[in-house]
Amino acid sequence: MISSEWNLIKEIELFLKQNEIKPTSALKMSIGDDCAIIEPTKNKLSLHSTDISIEDVHFIINKNEPENIGFKAMNGNISDIVAMGGKPLIALIALGIPDHISKNFILKLYKGFIEATNKSNMNIVGGDISKSKVLTISISIYGEVFPENIVKRDGAKIGDKIYVTGDIGRSKVGLDLLISSKDKITLENNEILEKHLRPESSLKIIDKINETYKPTSMIDISDGFLSDLNHICNKSSCGYTININNIPIHEKLKQYYKNDIDYESILSSGEEYELIFTSNEKNIPEVISFNDKKITQIGTITDNQKILLYNNKKIEINKSGYNHFEENKC
Amino acid sequence: MISSEWNLIKEIELFLKQNEIKPTSALKMSIGDDCAIIEPTKNKLSLHSTDISIEDVHFIINKNEPENIGFKAMNGNISDIVAMGGKPLIALIALGIPDHISKNFILKLYKGFIEATNKSNMNIVGGDISKSKVLTISISIYGEVFPENIVKRDGAKIGDKIYVTGDIGRSKVGLDLLISSKDKITLENNEILEKHLRPESSLKIIDKINETYKPTSMIDISDGFLSDLNHICNKSSCGYTININNIPIHEKLKQYYKNDIDYESILSSGEEYELIFTSNEKNIPEVISFNDKKITQIGTITDNQKILLYNNKKIEINKSGYNHFEENKC
Repeated sequence: MISSEWNLIKEIELFLKQNEIKPTSALKMSIGDDCAIIEPTKNKLSLHSTDISIEDVHFIINKNEPENIGFKAMNGNISDIVAMGGKPLIALIALGIPDHISKNFILKLYKGFIEATNKSNMNIVGGDISKSKVLTISISIYGEVFPENIVKRDGAKIGDKIYVTGDIGRSKVGLDLLISSKDKITLENNEILEKHLRPESSLKIIDKINETYKPTSMIDISDGFLSDLNHICNKSSCGYTININNIPIHEKLKQYYKNDIDYESILSSGEEYELIFTSNEKNIPEVISFNDKKITQIGTITDNQKILLYNNKKIEINKSGYNHFEENKC
Repeated sequence: MISSEWNLIKEIELFLKQNEIKPTSALKMSIGDDCAIIEPTKNKLSLHSTDISIEDVHFIINKNEPENIGFKAMNGNISDIVAMGGKPLIALIALGIPDHISKNFILKLYKGFIEATNKSNMNIVGGDISKSKVLTISISIYGEVFPENIVKRDGAKIGDKIYVTGDIGRSKVGLDLLISSKDKITLENNEILEKHLRPESSLKIIDKINETYKPTSMIDISDGFLSDLNHICNKSSCGYTININNIPIHEKLKQYYKNDIDYESILSSGEEYELIFTSNEKNIPEVISFNDKKITQIGTITDNQKILLYNNKKIEINKSGYNHFEENKC
């Protein structure tokens, strides 16, 4: 149980100093005043986003490690900046802390935040803490982008090819494994659970994507592949044809499914933090790998119909993604 | 009870379009993509802060109106930007929403957010919503400041005079009135409760303060006068002498106290969102009014002792401010 707001803030400040990478040169002042101060990079635009993660809605404390909870919450935010073609620079973290949480737990949570921010070359520059009934993690993130690199949801055009990074589907199955287990499961050699508990953003390949594909629209998969592709189609006023056979599925997930792959689960699996993007660049191979991460062509933008093809036949999928208010999601 | 995340987001987006002031020209893209996009003003630095407000810690739902809860939460954030000498530009809002909250309640909460942002010439540009056990409001705010106008906590020097804006003490008494009442109390003609439930930032006089006083250090009163003055002293490595007789007290608070003013309560009253600042400008009257808001000289920065004078005699005050984890605060 936390007894002093100020002592905890001091401990967090010290922990950040000991564990964070060197502050970015843009950071003129970090934690310790009413605001952090940044010097925006000349000729760049700034990107702003926020995400909230709540105990028993986004994560289950007794089946998880605080480091993973922090790592995932931060990467979900970073992914929003990447999905606009930008680079994250700083994050602010507001926490609601219940009585059953110890100081040690909070510092491990910060260890996870820092693992994600250090990998992304960014700094944590402020925050707020309060008592709460449930552990609540609200992160806001600020990034930058050159105007010519911005990729929005509304730029997809008929004939553009549709691409997805990495593989999809593991996060939902990882969640199912977690819910059905009585205890914590070790992440070691469990690449299905790892994708659910420690997803990473596509930051490390965003420059390659911009350069090679010049994306016309882009989004990250937070709600589910079909749900997020629908956001692109709504904003771009278009439809799609997706070739289900081309969907990239991890070897371990294929083994898990044996001969009966559940495409409905794969296409509605949320919190994947892979990117869906469209491109009209010609002569691009169907699969390219950058830094061990595959990019796979899986369909085409069309005028308005939304078609899923499996073995060249149209199929229907009922569920497209998550709704936080309709079901339990962890 | 909210049943669809996306329908609620759409309603909020529409409500913002109908009620917000015209977007600032710096705003290149608002809600509707992975991030909002801003064009930073040339030669300005950016300011970043976040604050979290939680049901039964920061506010009691059944004794308050959602408009007030929203108005106060937003102004608390705006006040952090003002306390650095800056101007707020945009806000992001992440909400945790429990089952007992209706869509109508959320829109009234947004009405309060917008009342605060419209007055401050800023826009709400994004957010996130999730289910939660308690209503949770996490706001992050982005502002701008010319480098020469930045006022930090660490610039107070021996001999500087100490000033405070407006009056202090009403917020804590307002909270006491609210806690001791069985029901909601009307705000009309209740200037004590109004200060607790609908505090405003000092944004409208920040230019006048910068111009007249050239502040050497500044902070807003969120924890309590003495607690926040201590933050300045810790950062500036100095002490103070405060003349208690000069503390500005609202006429209605004097009437409430009759002949027995509780200075301990006044000096520890949090969420006032008045500014404490220091200045070494000479020949400044002890009291100045800008736009109906008084600025009062109440003491002097000294080397290290912290002295409170009442009728020219030293007195002791035990309590300096709030700790969210030690007591109930609403």
